[in-house]
Amino acid sequence: MGDSHITFDHWEGCYADRVANIPSSATRDLFGAASRADMISLSGGMPDIRVMPEEVLKTALDSMLDNKNEALQYGSTDGRVQTKKIIIELMEDIGVNGLAPEDIIITSGSQQALDLMGKVFINPGDTIITEAPTYLGALQAFSVYQPNVRAVPFDDEGMRMDLLEELLKELGNRGAKFLYTIPTFQNPGGVTMTLERRKRLLELCHEYDITILEDDPYSRLRFDGEPVPSLRSMDPNVVYLGTFSKIFAPGLRVAWVIAPRAILQKINLCKQGADLCGSAFNQILAEKYFTLTPWKETLASYVETYKRRRDALLQACEEYLPEEVSYTHPEGGFFIWLTLPDYINTDRLLPIALDRGVTFVPGSGCYPDKTSNSMRLAFCYESEEDLTEGIKRISKVIDERLIMYRALKRDGLIVD
Amino acid sequence: MGDSHITFDHWEGCYADRVANIPSSATRDLFGAASRADMISLSGGMPDIRVMPEEVLKTALDSMLDNKNEALQYGSTDGRVQTKKIIIELMEDIGVNGLAPEDIIITSGSQQALDLMGKVFINPGDTIITEAPTYLGALQAFSVYQPNVRAVPFDDEGMRMDLLEELLKELGNRGAKFLYTIPTFQNPGGVTMTLERRKRLLELCHEYDITILEDDPYSRLRFDGEPVPSLRSMDPNVVYLGTFSKIFAPGLRVAWVIAPRAILQKINLCKQGADLCGSAFNQILAEKYFTLTPWKETLASYVETYKRRRDALLQACEEYLPEEVSYTHPEGGFFIWLTLPDYINTDRLLPIALDRGVTFVPGSGCYPDKTSNSMRLAFCYESEEDLTEGIKRISKVIDERLIMYRALKRDGLIVD
Repeated sequence: MGDSHITFDHWEGCYADRVANIPSSATRDLFGAASRADMISLSGGMPDIRVMPEEVLKTALDSMLDNKNEALQYGSTDGRVQTKKIIIELMEDIGVNGLAPEDIIITSGSQQALDLMGKVFINPGDTIITEAPTYLGALQAFSVYQPNVRAVPFDDEGMRMDLLEELLKELGNRGAKFLYTIPTFQNPGGVTMTLERRKRLLELCHEYDITILEDDPYSRLRFDGEPVPSLRSMDPNVVYLGTFSKIFAPGLRVAWVIAPRAILQKINLCKQGADLCGSAFNQILAEKYFTLTPWKETLASYVETYKRRRDALLQACEEYLPEEVSYTHPEGGFFIWLTLPDYINTDRLLPIALDRGVTFVPGSGCYPDKTSNSMRLAFCYESEEDLTEGIKRISKVIDERLIMYRALKRDGLIVD
Repeated sequence: MGDSHITFDHWEGCYADRVANIPSSATRDLFGAASRADMISLSGGMPDIRVMPEEVLKTALDSMLDNKNEALQYGSTDGRVQTKKIIIELMEDIGVNGLAPEDIIITSGSQQALDLMGKVFINPGDTIITEAPTYLGALQAFSVYQPNVRAVPFDDEGMRMDLLEELLKELGNRGAKFLYTIPTFQNPGGVTMTLERRKRLLELCHEYDITILEDDPYSRLRFDGEPVPSLRSMDPNVVYLGTFSKIFAPGLRVAWVIAPRAILQKINLCKQGADLCGSAFNQILAEKYFTLTPWKETLASYVETYKRRRDALLQACEEYLPEEVSYTHPEGGFFIWLTLPDYINTDRLLPIALDRGVTFVPGSGCYPDKTSNSMRLAFCYESEEDLTEGIKRISKVIDERLIMYRALKRDGLIVD
């Protein structure tokens, strides 16, 4: 929904401060306008649910009639106990033990949990800490609560603890409402925080009494390397976000937040006002999926598919990208992160790329301060062939700029 | 989720001002604790989806496989165009014409739309206007945005325009961010605003430049009398909330907001951060329901069922309630509103009623200022027999208090 048709806004001056200055997303508008038939999308983080066999969905659907009257009715605000029991088992799989249903609230996607965390914790002007870059949807969710976002860069081992320590010293005890991290297969970076860094993160946040918000949508999508334990498995005070979106399907909008009960109580009060309850139908459908279908096999197909695509993407990067471009090498998840020479603004590059039939997410949206020579590429949805062709197209667009830059430099028109 | 187990809250002092002082709902905690096997619920506004034949759901479900890949995938933030087309037809049915998909955003229940309206319009301290009493979930949704709520009483013809005019004179031009009304089969009142009052409301709000928020979940559940046109059908600047919850099923959480496009753009930006998108699965299921099943027949069964129950409830009220109790006579919807002698606080009456095996919603939650001698009774879910038995139980509880009161008065222990 662009706003090009709105020429006069009668309600100007009536809106709350929190939204008066949110601009419509330029990137979104650009994508909306792009309509090449052969467009290759390296932007969207859509799970490839085409991989799931039709029979699997059929099995789950066929049994829905057994629960017709619960499925069609209002449910409780915090979600169904039966669904929570499935979640408890999934969490045990990844080393988080001893959970009770009362430790969990089911949300409409993790996005709703991000919004609720903002609602519960952030007063205008409060500081929160994120990774730099971070998930753009998280920045968007928090932004309406008008925080002061301090972003800490990561390297191949995850968030840089030396920089975090500096920041925490500056901010002092309880100097930030929470620290938001996607430690495993980070969005957009693709990197995974090492165990050592995780331990240090917990130490530092304990020392400065900062609540950690761990967003963990991708950890079950590991292609190689050894699993690293979740922060929540190391500290029960960590607020943890999990979701069915990547291990089952995002179209159901079923996710969960695990948190200390005092925090959950506040989240639940806010959730009552925000949506009364999530969809009982979708929670039951998830229960069916995880009890009646061979979901581990389906998940293995997902992982196997994404692994092949990551391999194809990385190979194409190696083959076609100019050597001035560096990129991450994720062991799982959906994304790699490209860093271009710093004179290239990827916001400006996007319309050219769209014109050549390839999309990416410019890095600017992933930082609170909004300019960037980076981009996020997703390998989750397109075929290996298309991923390769997409990288060829992007490489060409970048290459042209590098050649022009070098030419100008050679002619003495640019001086470093 | 009560909070009785939380004895120490480490995060005390960390929460945002907007939630620091929300108490856990005492009513909700009471209901949670009540567990009599023969409890009769006159509290919940749950549509009786048991009325819908199983084959109807089966028809809709069976065709979901045709849309597997869309249904399981992320959708757009504002909702599916195909679902909006169904909504446009439903709106034409009730006299709202000329809508385009761009005039609609699909929300997770109308509750989400209430939350988004609060987010978009309310700064802490801003005034909003509601009916007195009003929908308690709306008060809850708005409360986190810390408004100053001014509530205007209604009588049998709906909100009192004389009192509204006085209030608007006091507040002045744009003196409230919006006026929230449920004009048809009001929740909790059951009353319907007359056409004359609707015209006057539009005039007054136009004069003082106040945005109207019309919540219309019940208008298609009319048992007798003539339909009254929606406010939106009389003025395209009215923000209108509609829902599938009462004409199909609440378990899907599919509802919609119709608003001027400038407002919709702000709502859409907030919705991106709040949930990314609603469930594509549930929107498609609704499309199937309204295209492949005889939904008008199913709706007629709903209406017929609720009419019989309203009749049973009103008859029981006439037969059993002490004459000091007055109540509304709705022509549709789910609720009647009981007004007791003013020395009876219905919050205090509730635990006694629960003990006798009947639930109601005490009126206090339906006012911004929280004490009440009133209660809401729902006739949507229990059988005619149980409704009658429920009223007998409530009547007895009230009667006992009246007898005690009269005895004390007779003995001179209470002086008016």
